[in-house]
Amino acid sequence: MGRTDVGGVSSDRPPVNNLQTRHLKILRACLGMRKLLLISSSRVHGSGFLEHCLVAIDEHLQPVERILFVPYALAEHDQYAELVATALHPIGVAIDSIHVAENPVTAVKQAQAIFIGGGNSFRLLKTLYELELIEPIREAVQSRGIPYMGSSAGTNMACPTIRTTNDMPIVEPPSFEALDLIPFQINPHFVDANPNSTHKGETREHRLAEYLEENQTPVAGLREGSWLKLEGDSCILGGKTGMKLFRRGTPPEEVAAGDVSYLLS
Amino acid sequence: MGRTDVGGVSSDRPPVNNLQTRHLKILRACLGMRKLLLISSSRVHGSGFLEHCLVAIDEHLQPVERILFVPYALAEHDQYAELVATALHPIGVAIDSIHVAENPVTAVKQAQAIFIGGGNSFRLLKTLYELELIEPIREAVQSRGIPYMGSSAGTNMACPTIRTTNDMPIVEPPSFEALDLIPFQINPHFVDANPNSTHKGETREHRLAEYLEENQTPVAGLREGSWLKLEGDSCILGGKTGMKLFRRGTPPEEVAAGDVSYLLS
Repeated sequence: MGRTDVGGVSSDRPPVNNLQTRHLKILRACLGMRKLLLISSSRVHGSGFLEHCLVAIDEHLQPVERILFVPYALAEHDQYAELVATALHPIGVAIDSIHVAENPVTAVKQAQAIFIGGGNSFRLLKTLYELELIEPIREAVQSRGIPYMGSSAGTNMACPTIRTTNDMPIVEPPSFEALDLIPFQINPHFVDANPNSTHKGETREHRLAEYLEENQTPVAGLREGSWLKLEGDSCILGGKTGMKLFRRGTPPEEVAAGDVSYLLS
Repeated sequence: MGRTDVGGVSSDRPPVNNLQTRHLKILRACLGMRKLLLISSSRVHGSGFLEHCLVAIDEHLQPVERILFVPYALAEHDQYAELVATALHPIGVAIDSIHVAENPVTAVKQAQAIFIGGGNSFRLLKTLYELELIEPIREAVQSRGIPYMGSSAGTNMACPTIRTTNDMPIVEPPSFEALDLIPFQINPHFVDANPNSTHKGETREHRLAEYLEENQTPVAGLREGSWLKLEGDSCILGGKTGMKLFRRGTPPEEVAAGDVSYLLS
């Protein structure tokens, strides 16, 4: 396979066919087709940053070779962008980090794909509001149909609100309303209660039960090592760890990898 | 010791001396004296609800025999009030729960002491704003000098903001600003990282480091089994588990039970 130079990063991918990319985008836009990859966590015990889902990322981003990275969930943007660039290098995807863009809104409008990385959801959402990026990102994903990828806090962003984040509210966003790209909530890093724990703080399951006391929207408790891949009306649970589904009025339900498109209806 | 009937609850306390109570209140108000007992958690492994700190509660509330209980952090108010009434019965303290008061603001204005119980901080703070209780409670504690007692979410309420809560943001309060009764933040249920954990979600320490990236106010990481007792310019760390103090620019510091009045300056 020929190696292509992609923004200074060598790639094993075939050369970009711009016409093909544009065609795909137009097609998706016509169909109102969203294309999302929502990862529970970038790190999973025993493997490197994003390593456990790299094949899914590669498939998700095809044929895109440059993605716009959004590092606002962490305080250190340069370092974060470098980490992501290194992680995506093996699949021949180069990144442009939005924090160095002259105009972040323009960067979103011109992006072929977007990756919002993990960190603190409150800090991330506050920054998206401050830079007036909510609508442009929504438009890019829903109308232009460009691939969206999120991990952890970036996965929280794709939900109607950040009401199912695990993060500490270290800063105050103007609203908890997020990008609203999917009709259900996700709780990333979902973790089962440790039966041997002596800690009396709420378990994750208890917290999600509290959420359902106040809200109707179902929650996918996505374990580390799992992800959801949405394309149009299809939603597939990927990875090896499964998820737990929380719906008001019914006991939590264990869900194994496979088709979970019913979440979209 | 003679038993006194206190609102249907028997007590081993001496009869209330109304003049003495009033005198104490006036004295505290003149001195601008706050009197707070801020408990990390109502439940501690191996003992009953509030049992581990009952002696401290008894001492804190003297000579008050009726306290106003605020159950808004949980969804089930009746049940919660009953639990607290049972827990405080052994020290002869009766409760009036604010959720059955005809006028919650009047209830606060007439209260001899206030206890805000744990649960979800976002739900609690939202309700305090909705019922316009923020100012009346602040006034009762800071100007009238009545004893304030908080546990978990009720301890979060005493801080400048809820930015160091562990709770899920299941509802959206109009602001993160809380009662602001103390000049530092508390993280209740503080828990040390488990060195054997394979979970990649942030540790508590990591979350508090993120808080300090965005905020200057120090945070007392109060372990379950510990509490802070504030009276005027004195602040004492009680209990057996200690706390970890987080300040910007310095490594976290282990603090054992004893005088921590420096937190107030």
